Amino acid sequence: MTEFIPPATRWHTLPSPFAMKRGGELRDARMAYETWGTLNAARDNAVLIVTGLSPDAHAASNEGNPEPGWWDAMVGPGKPIDTDRWFVICVNSLGSCKGSTGPASVNPATGTRYGLAFPELSVEDGANAAFEVVKSLGVDTLACLVGNSMGGMVALAYLLLHPDSARAHINISGSARALPFSIAIRSLQREAIRLDPNWNHGDYDDDTQYPEAGMRMARKLGVITYRSALEWDGRFGRVRLDSDRREDEEPFGLEFEVESYLEGHARRFVRHFDPNCYLYLSRSMDWFDLAEYGDGDVEAGLRRIRVDRALAIGVKTDILFPLQQQEEVADGLRAAGADTEFLPLPSPQGHDAFLVDIARFGPAVRNFLSSL
Amino acid sequence: MTEFIPPATRWHTLPSPFAMKRGGELRDARMAYETWGTLNAARDNAVLIVTGLSPDAHAASNEGNPEPGWWDAMVGPGKPIDTDRWFVICVNSLGSCKGSTGPASVNPATGTRYGLAFPELSVEDGANAAFEVVKSLGVDTLACLVGNSMGGMVALAYLLLHPDSARAHINISGSARALPFSIAIRSLQREAIRLDPNWNHGDYDDDTQYPEAGMRMARKLGVITYRSALEWDGRFGRVRLDSDRREDEEPFGLEFEVESYLEGHARRFVRHFDPNCYLYLSRSMDWFDLAEYGDGDVEAGLRRIRVDRALAIGVKTDILFPLQQQEEVADGLRAAGADTEFLPLPSPQGHDAFLVDIARFGPAVRNFLSSL
Repeated sequence: MTEFIPPATRWHTLPSPFAMKRGGELRDARMAYETWGTLNAARDNAVLIVTGLSPDAHAASNEGNPEPGWWDAMVGPGKPIDTDRWFVICVNSLGSCKGSTGPASVNPATGTRYGLAFPELSVEDGANAAFEVVKSLGVDTLACLVGNSMGGMVALAYLLLHPDSARAHINISGSARALPFSIAIRSLQREAIRLDPNWNHGDYDDDTQYPEAGMRMARKLGVITYRSALEWDGRFGRVRLDSDRREDEEPFGLEFEVESYLEGHARRFVRHFDPNCYLYLSRSMDWFDLAEYGDGDVEAGLRRIRVDRALAIGVKTDILFPLQQQEEVADGLRAAGADTEFLPLPSPQGHDAFLVDIARFGPAVRNFLSSL
Repeated sequence: MTEFIPPATRWHTLPSPFAMKRGGELRDARMAYETWGTLNAARDNAVLIVTGLSPDAHAASNEGNPEPGWWDAMVGPGKPIDTDRWFVICVNSLGSCKGSTGPASVNPATGTRYGLAFPELSVEDGANAAFEVVKSLGVDTLACLVGNSMGGMVALAYLLLHPDSARAHINISGSARALPFSIAIRSLQREAIRLDPNWNHGDYDDDTQYPEAGMRMARKLGVITYRSALEWDGRFGRVRLDSDRREDEEPFGLEFEVESYLEGHARRFVRHFDPNCYLYLSRSMDWFDLAEYGDGDVEAGLRRIRVDRALAIGVKTDILFPLQQQEEVADGLRAAGADTEFLPLPSPQGHDAFLVDIARFGPAVRNFLSSL
């Protein structure tokens, strides 16, 4: 399977072997990352961004790649994550197919891609790999660690496993553990891929046998859970497609705008993300549970994290990482001694609001970073 | 495809031809129904129940079939829908595969089953067919029309299209129109079936070529949206399967209790519901919009309905037919002149609460019916 690597990507080779939490190890693995701004002489102005499941390291345009990034409105000179002040690093997740080593990468031991021979991937592995990138850039302590969605899990693991690695933390639509509704959704997404005969137990072969039907289903189900019914009521209502965009000859074909919206998302995703990478990253979220570090108690796990300041932001319309989970993070970090703010936002856009509701997320992130 | 018909089923043959709303007609079509209790001499104690997508007409045990029905706790002597007082009728939906004529039935014109040759099915067709059953039983005016979920749509169409057909109405987790989140979910369920090669454009053949993978996906997605995250947090949490129930040898196999729960639901459904019937009934809900009867305004559509008394019940945790939709029904019926109560319930079980939270739904329905 092709990897999808943006042009400004830089790489850091991980220590070899790189031990994985659940067993096994990687050799000669690498992490893809990009940076913005300049590390100051005191090396105390670094901000690391860890991402959701699918983004690459290109969070925003930069010298190497003027194309807008996935968080372009948030990262740049004068923007909420102000690159005139901060040295910003964004890593592509370990296990992804967008530059960092993952199941779509070639296994140096065999000369063929890993596929399902890739060791079991946990959120903690991604955190440890991101930590190595930061260390390689000469940063001992981050000014702030920002994690969105899955990245909110990665960030908490990073902080817990690497004491004194950051002074502040912004957890956006993240959580300290996976709960059954989101596990059910992700399990179904994975099942859609696994049921596709072209998946072939992970042994598909580039373009000829890509599990397109499974990936379409997985992506559409993802998009349904990334947004909210409230947003869609206003955005789509019951509007139907114009007749020239209808599939009237196709039994049960597309008819409503909302169906076409999902179709567009599926088309842009399918063949641009590796199915095995999707499966590995998805499962890593199900496994994540900070209670493992707190004798079965998630708050006790959170209490092992040491940061000076924390901000947990969530959205009332989020059905995938519901607001109580960000409140749980805030309560735990506060109990751990951090000066912590919990900020519930009334964004209608659901889990993905941090990508689109910049009017609310921009000031929230800007104000917190400005106060550091 | 096999039909799945409970033993106490009775039938009423519809007028032939039976014209369908969107064009086409059925010949020699029949409706399956069951009854409980006795119609009184004044013929004014009849209660009709119209169902969600999948139930048959066997709402409760009766003389012909002592097996518990799908609403057994609600229907019977002394129960909330008290068959000592009421003559209760439950119909299997037109288009279903559980006794009433649908895509899995044999087309008398060809001698083969309809499949996709079945005319387009609308909620209104189901309402008109149910009306014929009630009329055939000698009932001019129902004491109460009870509709759950899709049946809440059917009931509103029934009341609007057949003036003076009922004095009272209970709308449970229903709606006056489909909104985009539920359209998206149903569209994805249908796509799962359509993408299954065994669906074969509706031309599968019994056991040898049933679209099992597609139906599994559709059912699991259904169950996810029928319940609620809140209920599952308490019910499943992060509990894992015992090792003897794990699928450790299967890559990405079941690991959590919530996954096993979905699997159980899928296994009980697959091969017990006809895929084409599922597609037709599912799409009929997307199409339903009482605004068609109100010059584009759903409340104006509702205002055309005449009943004396109405009760709309909804559940805060319902993501498929959210509570605002039952409030919309209540507001519209009240504006139409009905003495109307809107009853939001704090059930944690989501859309399906009316099937399981009898502690709340029982008294609500009992009190309303007692007051008639």
